Amino acid sequence: MNERNFDVTVIGGGPAGEVAAGKLGEAGLSVALVESHLIGGECSYYACMPSKALLRPAEALAEARRVPGAAEAVTGQLDVEAVLRRRDQIVHGLDDSDQVPWLDERNVTVVRGHGVLDGERRVRVGDELLLAERAVVIATGTGAAMPPLPGLSEAAVWTNREATTAASVPERLLIMGGGVVGVELAQAWASLGSKVTLLELFERILVREEPFAGAEVEASLRQLGVDVRTGAEAVRVERRDGTVTIELADGNRVEGDELLVAIGRRALTGDLGLETVKLQPGAPIEVDDGMRVPGRDWLYAIGDVNGRSLLTTHMGKYQARIAAENILGGHARVARPAQGPLAPRVVFTDPQVAAVGHTLESAERTGIAAVAVDHATGGSAGSSFYGRKVAGTTRLVFDADRDVLVGATFVGPDVAEMLHAATIAIVGEVPAARLAHAIPAFPTRNEIWLRLLAKYEQAERPRQLRAAG
Amino acid sequence: MNERNFDVTVIGGGPAGEVAAGKLGEAGLSVALVESHLIGGECSYYACMPSKALLRPAEALAEARRVPGAAEAVTGQLDVEAVLRRRDQIVHGLDDSDQVPWLDERNVTVVRGHGVLDGERRVRVGDELLLAERAVVIATGTGAAMPPLPGLSEAAVWTNREATTAASVPERLLIMGGGVVGVELAQAWASLGSKVTLLELFERILVREEPFAGAEVEASLRQLGVDVRTGAEAVRVERRDGTVTIELADGNRVEGDELLVAIGRRALTGDLGLETVKLQPGAPIEVDDGMRVPGRDWLYAIGDVNGRSLLTTHMGKYQARIAAENILGGHARVARPAQGPLAPRVVFTDPQVAAVGHTLESAERTGIAAVAVDHATGGSAGSSFYGRKVAGTTRLVFDADRDVLVGATFVGPDVAEMLHAATIAIVGEVPAARLAHAIPAFPTRNEIWLRLLAKYEQAERPRQLRAAG
Repeated sequence: MNERNFDVTVIGGGPAGEVAAGKLGEAGLSVALVESHLIGGECSYYACMPSKALLRPAEALAEARRVPGAAEAVTGQLDVEAVLRRRDQIVHGLDDSDQVPWLDERNVTVVRGHGVLDGERRVRVGDELLLAERAVVIATGTGAAMPPLPGLSEAAVWTNREATTAASVPERLLIMGGGVVGVELAQAWASLGSKVTLLELFERILVREEPFAGAEVEASLRQLGVDVRTGAEAVRVERRDGTVTIELADGNRVEGDELLVAIGRRALTGDLGLETVKLQPGAPIEVDDGMRVPGRDWLYAIGDVNGRSLLTTHMGKYQARIAAENILGGHARVARPAQGPLAPRVVFTDPQVAAVGHTLESAERTGIAAVAVDHATGGSAGSSFYGRKVAGTTRLVFDADRDVLVGATFVGPDVAEMLHAATIAIVGEVPAARLAHAIPAFPTRNEIWLRLLAKYEQAERPRQLRAAG
Repeated sequence: MNERNFDVTVIGGGPAGEVAAGKLGEAGLSVALVESHLIGGECSYYACMPSKALLRPAEALAEARRVPGAAEAVTGQLDVEAVLRRRDQIVHGLDDSDQVPWLDERNVTVVRGHGVLDGERRVRVGDELLLAERAVVIATGTGAAMPPLPGLSEAAVWTNREATTAASVPERLLIMGGGVVGVELAQAWASLGSKVTLLELFERILVREEPFAGAEVEASLRQLGVDVRTGAEAVRVERRDGTVTIELADGNRVEGDELLVAIGRRALTGDLGLETVKLQPGAPIEVDDGMRVPGRDWLYAIGDVNGRSLLTTHMGKYQARIAAENILGGHARVARPAQGPLAPRVVFTDPQVAAVGHTLESAERTGIAAVAVDHATGGSAGSSFYGRKVAGTTRLVFDADRDVLVGATFVGPDVAEMLHAATIAIVGEVPAARLAHAIPAFPTRNEIWLRLLAKYEQAERPRQLRAAG
């Protein structure tokens, strides 16, 4: 067996693995980056990027149609072929050769193949053995989770991969799962002409966000013609003569030409040789705040695979920077206030959902003396020009004991860029009294901060506060 | 002469005056609000609001045209009549009756007429004398400044008032002054069909912003067909047979059907009776950080009239809240980091210019150990979907001694909502090292923060820092 020596071996060339490898290479280390499919990972080819590419044209057109004077110029329809062509450009036709020069420049050696741990600091790729002097970084991400449903495995279902790269618009699309993947692709394909049915097991979609977020997105999906069914439990799937049928627990059946399963993610650790270093195959790899696997000072896990915050490329890249800094001898730790499930997250539907930190429910569950204040996202002078008449709520959640912001959820058209202000306030732990001196410009939509902060100032504080005071 | 007693008399019913009166009324004080023209002020009828109304349709359409798949649907043209109708809606047809109920509900008495000080706590309005028990608040704002130019006063020129409310599109529009009013209205009328010539005395437009801001907006105006002339000194104006001609110092002449003069603002204090309380008529009214006129504990001045930050409705409203709190017995002060000329400001052109705090030049002039880092505003994955191929630069300016952000300028399409994150970072004095843990969501355009912070981390520090350390 061939042997090669590197300072660090990174398994998985998605955004997290790429950033870790690049930073280590920049610092002068020799790095092997092992990837079995495409450098760039799920995000670049099968998730955020193509999903946003499918959504954005309809969103831009919807906004133009909401603006008098511009609306009159929109006399044609969305050009489906052009949308799909642009999506293909965005995913580089599933070709990763554009990604490689960036790694080459940083002295990162790309090793094509499936990487498997073979004991401490040892990674096997086919008939080659990579020996890491300093560290191994696992960044293999997640794949679509599949429920153990009779008939499912024979039904040729779509995961996010097929649903983001499909070459044509399915006439009828069934979607199982009303999380971010399900709702984004429901909206994308419905806007491109599919008759979409969205099934969600829980009583609302986007179940981990504020309840109004799911409600407002659901209303918008319905307007687009999506048949949203909440509390819908699938019990059996069958594909016959090209048609997929799902039987529901209540006896109803729904039919489609394709079925996208988007019920969750599973860590891609089943076939990684974890057993050779006494870790549990198939489970997410737990790490400390420095991204190190406890008890194995040479082993790191970053991105989706550590289960901290799923489907958040930005957190994977952040964790990569933390891990790289530590491998280089630093003592970096992820900062607590907006981590894991509290990390910033955006659902690119129309209205969008942009959230960071706690929901009211998660804050209360954590024992925070939470005070939530709500305002219509469109409740500002600036909104007369932008996203007119689109429903949407913004909520800020404060910790009344510490008088700081701990959560924010914006629902509305094109609110994604409004999120970072809340992220800085939360991570910076800027006192609420100080936030009141950060004045949003008139007439921007951010003026809702004024209303929200005024409401917080006047809000009744939870009893805990008085008792503690 | 009739006499009426109030707790507080507010002169001027623009945004600042309205907010002050409203807050004092809510607190239970009796308030008189004196307004000679329209409740709502310059901003609502003749500035930000109609200007944005004229700009937004072309902006929304330009964005739709930049997005493949949406572009194909935009087969018509901007509907000029619809734009003007929408602008008329936005300014409520210059009728302020919608504004009055909000004041009524707060027990604010609207007094129509021209308010003039008549000694301490006394305000005369026609044949009525308003006696204020606690305070008088001056919020009369500014009007367009006129240069002493031969022929100007006979040329029936436009100020911002005529230029924002014009009922039809002038064939040829001359604009004197390349500040925010001049450039917004140059873009607005050019996009609606005018042949616009923009004259700026200095060597660049938007002279108080970062140099790249003016350069990038100028390039965009030129693309739109605007004839931008910098270093252009007007020496004489003449109107004859409907045509306005400006003679320039270099001997050139430019012609138009209308001439908008937008060279600056003057405080509306000439006819306010300031001499009765020993203040200088015609000048801005200087105030302390609590908005009180030094030596006159009963007199406040808020908004444009105090000269602190011009044409910023949001700062006027903020100062109003500060003044109201102090009149109610508080000890409020404006927070220093983003005040006066450092206040947040947005130019709603395409690309927009959104800035807060220092430019590099103003920071250096102030003696700050300034480090500036630049990145293309479109230099992120998120920008592949948004504002594609539009030039624009973002600059952050740090104080390297204190390791905090002190200025930010974003130039790009629709960047206005990106500004508030910088405002919170500056006002919250969030350490740069902490900002690096505030992670922008992927794929939002805010990911440029990552690049900018990484550049700052690697930037050479000014010598002052080393010396001081």
